Amino acid sequence: MRRERGLLIVLSGPSGVGKGTVRKALFSQPDTNYEYSISMTTRLPREGEVDGVDYFFKSTEEFESLIEQGQLLEYAKYVGNYYGTPLEYVNKTLDAGRDVFLEIEVQGAAQIRDKVPDGLFIFLAPPSISALQQRLVGRGTETEDVIATRIAAANQELEMMNLYDYVVENDEVQLACDRVNAIVVAEHCRRERVEKQYLAMLRGE
Amino acid sequence: MRRERGLLIVLSGPSGVGKGTVRKALFSQPDTNYEYSISMTTRLPREGEVDGVDYFFKSTEEFESLIEQGQLLEYAKYVGNYYGTPLEYVNKTLDAGRDVFLEIEVQGAAQIRDKVPDGLFIFLAPPSISALQQRLVGRGTETEDVIATRIAAANQELEMMNLYDYVVENDEVQLACDRVNAIVVAEHCRRERVEKQYLAMLRGE
Repeated sequence: MRRERGLLIVLSGPSGVGKGTVRKALFSQPDTNYEYSISMTTRLPREGEVDGVDYFFKSTEEFESLIEQGQLLEYAKYVGNYYGTPLEYVNKTLDAGRDVFLEIEVQGAAQIRDKVPDGLFIFLAPPSISALQQRLVGRGTETEDVIATRIAAANQELEMMNLYDYVVENDEVQLACDRVNAIVVAEHCRRERVEKQYLAMLRGE
Repeated sequence: MRRERGLLIVLSGPSGVGKGTVRKALFSQPDTNYEYSISMTTRLPREGEVDGVDYFFKSTEEFESLIEQGQLLEYAKYVGNYYGTPLEYVNKTLDAGRDVFLEIEVQGAAQIRDKVPDGLFIFLAPPSISALQQRLVGRGTETEDVIATRIAAANQELEMMNLYDYVVENDEVQLACDRVNAIVVAEHCRRERVEKQYLAMLRGE
């Protein structure tokens, strides 16, 4: 039987929420069964960094040529250097039936959502809804203006959430990892996916 | 903050697939955090059976009156006795923010799907897709008729699957339990649910 294509798992969320910490924790666990997608950059390797391990290092000309060829899932420029996700590595890994994991800024995630609508988009949210509630209401001594500003900021976070399939609260790193893992297991059990396999099999594919 | 309503988890599947075994395994595990919905029946208690523990025991008149009042999520008659799922217990438990777990025949599950569209419907599938494939193709010595009959039977199972959100292969009881648990964790992280809580909070509810 033809193997199911892998899942593209995109972990994103507001800056400072702890995306990198959760990603590192996931990949330090022996039962994590995703491939981590290595980013591509035009910045020079730092001491000890290895091409194809830490980053794929490219010249600006190479990077811009790849952009023109549509070979980047997403990219952005920071401090004069390009950073992006190479499409070829992601596609090859997915085609081999393996799940690919990206940890990425919200702008990059939005670019990917357009290109890979069946990806799995997980929004890492600030620790606990009740913490947000406390932040909004404060100690009961805040002016209405302060509370209104906080509600506006929370609304902005909520709007970013809109593009995502799942929201994982980062109240505790291990709990957040457990939820990400559960989401991946559950997605592999979604009827649409399993049914496709059954149908392909019944058709003798 | 208002507590999220619990999830109605419905585990079903073809007869003989091992629904009861998976349910018992789930409820023998200390970290299972669902309430098991006790069925209602008109058959007499067997020795040792306790009303409200094994079943809610009712007279035929009481049962039929509850049917008329729409107080059963689903029901069926076997060997002259009614069996069904009382709506009130399910609703009270869900309203208290607790997940309710039902293990039920496919006909009952179809009745519930109509009444509770936002329930979580899990189809327990025969052990492994590759086993099904082997069953279809056989040893290469089967006639085309035999293979056609097998494909028709498999198609019938597949059609039942159609009403469900998730398909869990019962290749190994513990793996099936792990998948059910992962699905419940993931569903609690679905953006639509979490977003609703955030919105309610921002509106000061």
